[in-house]
Amino acid sequence: MEISPPYLLFLGDVHDALAAKTALGVVDWRPEWCLGQMRLAGCNADAGLAEMTPVEAAAKGARTFVVGAVNAGGVLPEHWIASIVAAIEAGLDVASGMHVRLSSFAPIRAAAEKHGARLFDLRHGERAFSTGKGTKRPGLRLLTVGTDCSVGKKYTALALEKAMRARGLDADFRATGQTGVLIAGRGVAIDAVVADFISGAVEWLAPDAAPTHWDLIEGQGSLFHPSFAGVSLGLLHGAQPDAFVVCHEPTRTTMRGVAHKLPSIAEVIEATVRSGQLTNPGIRPVGIAVNTAALDEATARTYLADTADAHGLPASDPVRFGVEGIVDRVAAEFPL
Amino acid sequence: MEISPPYLLFLGDVHDALAAKTALGVVDWRPEWCLGQMRLAGCNADAGLAEMTPVEAAAKGARTFVVGAVNAGGVLPEHWIASIVAAIEAGLDVASGMHVRLSSFAPIRAAAEKHGARLFDLRHGERAFSTGKGTKRPGLRLLTVGTDCSVGKKYTALALEKAMRARGLDADFRATGQTGVLIAGRGVAIDAVVADFISGAVEWLAPDAAPTHWDLIEGQGSLFHPSFAGVSLGLLHGAQPDAFVVCHEPTRTTMRGVAHKLPSIAEVIEATVRSGQLTNPGIRPVGIAVNTAALDEATARTYLADTADAHGLPASDPVRFGVEGIVDRVAAEFPL
Repeated sequence: MEISPPYLLFLGDVHDALAAKTALGVVDWRPEWCLGQMRLAGCNADAGLAEMTPVEAAAKGARTFVVGAVNAGGVLPEHWIASIVAAIEAGLDVASGMHVRLSSFAPIRAAAEKHGARLFDLRHGERAFSTGKGTKRPGLRLLTVGTDCSVGKKYTALALEKAMRARGLDADFRATGQTGVLIAGRGVAIDAVVADFISGAVEWLAPDAAPTHWDLIEGQGSLFHPSFAGVSLGLLHGAQPDAFVVCHEPTRTTMRGVAHKLPSIAEVIEATVRSGQLTNPGIRPVGIAVNTAALDEATARTYLADTADAHGLPASDPVRFGVEGIVDRVAAEFPL
Repeated sequence: MEISPPYLLFLGDVHDALAAKTALGVVDWRPEWCLGQMRLAGCNADAGLAEMTPVEAAAKGARTFVVGAVNAGGVLPEHWIASIVAAIEAGLDVASGMHVRLSSFAPIRAAAEKHGARLFDLRHGERAFSTGKGTKRPGLRLLTVGTDCSVGKKYTALALEKAMRARGLDADFRATGQTGVLIAGRGVAIDAVVADFISGAVEWLAPDAAPTHWDLIEGQGSLFHPSFAGVSLGLLHGAQPDAFVVCHEPTRTTMRGVAHKLPSIAEVIEATVRSGQLTNPGIRPVGIAVNTAALDEATARTYLADTADAHGLPASDPVRFGVEGIVDRVAAEFPL
């Protein structure tokens, strides 16, 4: 799947920033690919880019219209279709992280055929996977896990890639979600894989590697989320990580989209070790990544220090304070 | 999905009976629908039916050719295609539990078009599901879980349906695999659902019901199987069972298809209660179902008595000794 930058990011009219996390993630990690944003009336998300129409973006060299926002369940609202058709008519390809295929909408399909646009459904890999084998593979792997969905698992894996590479470590980010695939240029949207092949798809994504090579695998969901725990468990078993980082958002009280309470960080560590031992008996936590955006800096620092003490692990906000402490722990635990 | 009986069961040339469990399961529970079997040279499975060709079966009134055997990964061997085409040419529909679609093979597709045959891919429901909500639903639910794949989870749920209905209880088998769907006439092959919707599909399968109604939900895989644990966990969360029965095969040492050791029954009970509490805090075990086919009767009885004592639960072989003890426990634990 070769998606051509630069991008025009479409945010629709979603009601919060979390719903636009695809667009915001691409801007964070590939700002040089993001020419502008397009929003509809009532949109509460903002990627901080220049507002432009598809025609304006195409004139500036944009190649792909990225539907960078999602509704619950991945549905494509009917009233977004006109914007997508306009992008195609302006000469852009379209990439979407929706569960529903772009080509299942007749106006989009017709416009794409007429204008020769390519339609990328990031959640629909056509690749066939094998079932997971659970056999320990050579190479080192780190998985980001979470107390909930949308708590920074992708961001943390990308920050670790950057910091580990800066230290000369051989490390690759492995994308398991549509945003990650847009950032990495490859990967698999694991929540769109047929259920039987979840762990097998991750075995494909992070295959046998050199003994000193790190795959930094983007986690999904949470072992404690009633909608998605199956995905998280299959991902854990396929990743067979040597190390994991727990990602957390301290002001959230219920899990995203459901009425369930967030688990504690300690519960996530315990469940991840217990379940992960099935395919890697040596699995261990190496850090805690906290999204402290809702806390002032002093409160954030206190929270991180307390969290580090309570769990005997480095704790940081990757965005605010970096991941050097976690990389130190990785280097200490896995000397090369 | 309306599949027309009676069936001609195709066993291919699979190397053991487990690989033909679809055919054998249909014969066990719907013998009146099974006219005969067709096998290729080298087949080590036997459904105990008269051998017949598609032409002979059609002459006796068969309506559907059931591909009742599966290879690892659900692949359709090339050399089975001629048999399927012959069935279509004899006037039969075809139903398959393979992951790959029948229509993806040009000779099968062409024959079906020419002869007006219907092709049923049991693993490919076209229905769209919502993500699971995890909210407690009215009605009672029992899930069969296992120490491994292929240890009698479907059989146990069907035996419970029969025994509970005989006592006047309002109970329905809920199929989550292709064989179950052939037996029940409805259901969802849960391992073929897109990963994001595993628990949501089970919420659809076993919806809100009367307070005294039992859904008896067919389990899949095992929480301890490195290939399929994600499916098992999503199924558990979606089923939100009040009660569960652990299914086990006592002579098996490694889990099917992988090198991993079988978990103990106690480990399965502990993991099922711990994980299941996320969507049903009252979840509890009500029995152990053991496939004792490999043991002589005295050994089987001793094994079951010891197992019952060790876990404080009724233990039986549903095929050999019935499930009355488990139904007694259900009735005692959940008085109507």
